[in-house]
Amino acid sequence: MSDLYAMKWKAAVDADDFPDHPADRQLGVMAASERSTLAGRLAPDIAAEQEKVRWSDAVILQFPMWWFSVPAILKGWIDRVFTSGFGYGPEVPPPYSEGALAGRRALLSATMGARESAFSDRGIHGRLADVLHPVQHGLFWFTGMAPLEPFAVYDANELPQDRFTAAKQAYGQRLDGLFTDEPVPFRSLVGGDYGRDMRLLPGAESPGTAGLDLHVHPQA
Amino acid sequence: MSDLYAMKWKAAVDADDFPDHPADRQLGVMAASERSTLAGRLAPDIAAEQEKVRWSDAVILQFPMWWFSVPAILKGWIDRVFTSGFGYGPEVPPPYSEGALAGRRALLSATMGARESAFSDRGIHGRLADVLHPVQHGLFWFTGMAPLEPFAVYDANELPQDRFTAAKQAYGQRLDGLFTDEPVPFRSLVGGDYGRDMRLLPGAESPGTAGLDLHVHPQA
Repeated sequence: MSDLYAMKWKAAVDADDFPDHPADRQLGVMAASERSTLAGRLAPDIAAEQEKVRWSDAVILQFPMWWFSVPAILKGWIDRVFTSGFGYGPEVPPPYSEGALAGRRALLSATMGARESAFSDRGIHGRLADVLHPVQHGLFWFTGMAPLEPFAVYDANELPQDRFTAAKQAYGQRLDGLFTDEPVPFRSLVGGDYGRDMRLLPGAESPGTAGLDLHVHPQA
Repeated sequence: MSDLYAMKWKAAVDADDFPDHPADRQLGVMAASERSTLAGRLAPDIAAEQEKVRWSDAVILQFPMWWFSVPAILKGWIDRVFTSGFGYGPEVPPPYSEGALAGRRALLSATMGARESAFSDRGIHGRLADVLHPVQHGLFWFTGMAPLEPFAVYDANELPQDRFTAAKQAYGQRLDGLFTDEPVPFRSLVGGDYGRDMRLLPGAESPGTAGLDLHVHPQA
């Protein structure tokens, strides 16, 4: 378990993350990050988190939704830990479906102030699955993990005891299914759904499918 | 202009942001943030950024896309600056369309490693507009700003001089249109597109519209 606030996790990627490549602006952050990863020379706090992820069977991100995404400190955990050479990139399998972190379950568990209807299929904030797509598909699926449907507690700015108890029970049920529930059936890159230009092949989707649903296999 | 790295911007919201409400875990961060905002007692670095936004005619976020979103340091600027009582919430207009920061243009300008096709309508990463929706609609539109189409430089891990020159020119053209280009025609909350449950009213969309496009007015 990594309690980022308790750990005083540093959120911003900076030159201290790459001790062998200080302040080399010509090199660029991507290259410095990748070289440090491959050389095993990342800052110790990053290396320790990578080791936890490497060891894990499942990754759960528990967070309050702030501005329709993860809080900055958690974004900083994502930015700093999932380096090129660890979560994707050279010397690891290609991204998506068989990616570097394949074999792990992944779960987003979020609390939020909005009502459920505002995140429903026609809700003004956008469907929860679409709003969380950058993390579900962009981080989890991209690195090869198998994301489950997110777990959400809505209207959570104030949570009376009865709703807290119900939410706790529902979360427990989701954790019971962590290794048995069906992951979101995102489409596969190596499976032939996409062309070499990384676009979904024509006709792959069911008629009427649009938006980010294009990237989910039609339900059987 | 706020150069967050040069400013050593603190990314994580914490108790230091609310000097009058230190470490009051019972109060909660939302309430502490809101009370400090309404009392004019936010940390000076937050107050200074709010003053810049208040003064502005347009807000441009310039960033490298990391993990399909803004870098943590910029997420921390969003999390810390757009407090309840400033960007939304009590004593300001209701969110969306006529929100607290109405009258301002807003532009996302992002560089990214992926090719344009991977962010195109059928691209594997999702359409760029969908991936950026949490910021475009969730931050800009929610607080009343008028977001323009994002400006993107793709395949930007290495940018030869000719492509850099072309990107610079294209960006200049977008900046020339900052106050004259048509904003993304997101639907209005006060204009009657949504019901009291914050769901888009039945039949409001053109046939075949799905996904996050539901929240954009059909083009005339």
